[in-house]
Amino acid sequence: MAFQTVKPACMSIEKRPGCIQSALKILGDKWTPLLLGQLVSGQKTFGELEIDLAGISPRTLSDRLSKLEISEIITKNKYNEHPPRYKYGLTAKGQELQEVLVKMAEWGEKYHQ
Amino acid sequence: MAFQTVKPACMSIEKRPGCIQSALKILGDKWTPLLLGQLVSGQKTFGELEIDLAGISPRTLSDRLSKLEISEIITKNKYNEHPPRYKYGLTAKGQELQEVLVKMAEWGEKYHQ
Repeated sequence: MAFQTVKPACMSIEKRPGCIQSALKILGDKWTPLLLGQLVSGQKTFGELEIDLAGISPRTLSDRLSKLEISEIITKNKYNEHPPRYKYGLTAKGQELQEVLVKMAEWGEKYHQ
Repeated sequence: MAFQTVKPACMSIEKRPGCIQSALKILGDKWTPLLLGQLVSGQKTFGELEIDLAGISPRTLSDRLSKLEISEIITKNKYNEHPPRYKYGLTAKGQELQEVLVKMAEWGEKYHQ
């Protein structure tokens, strides 16, 4: 195992530096994991998300949604022309981020007090 | 699937509220994921960790280590009596947190630019 003494151990987890941070950058706030959790079962409107995430302010929800859209984690899809109405749904990139959430939830379930 | 319309979707990810947050609370800073990554291959001394985590200040490393010790993610083990010398290693709880890091790294590897 001489190779391991040369290669930093973190490399066995991430092949390039910044991989873990890029996931944390998206998941590392209070609302985003919960918000993504709400979209697992399918697309939702702003109003539906507001109800699901009891306590979130419209401003915060709007901010998180637009950040996730920019990061290509979710898409905003128009489902009605007049008046314009939108639903938010996960992209493939967002779906795969769920696997991280599932692992976190499993860990938390076991150890969270 | 009538059940799903009643039960909030996030519940399909976390069975109790706060599970995901409890993992994020530990992983959600710049150094901790990297620090935990360094301990995958075995116990390390403070000095070894300082070298592995190039750029970390001794004060920050010391702070992160004691926080992780309090959270029972790592243990501090004395390996020499005079002078007292310690190595830091992962607990079972810490080992299982690695699985979250691995998932994050996989996601980041695919999508991190």
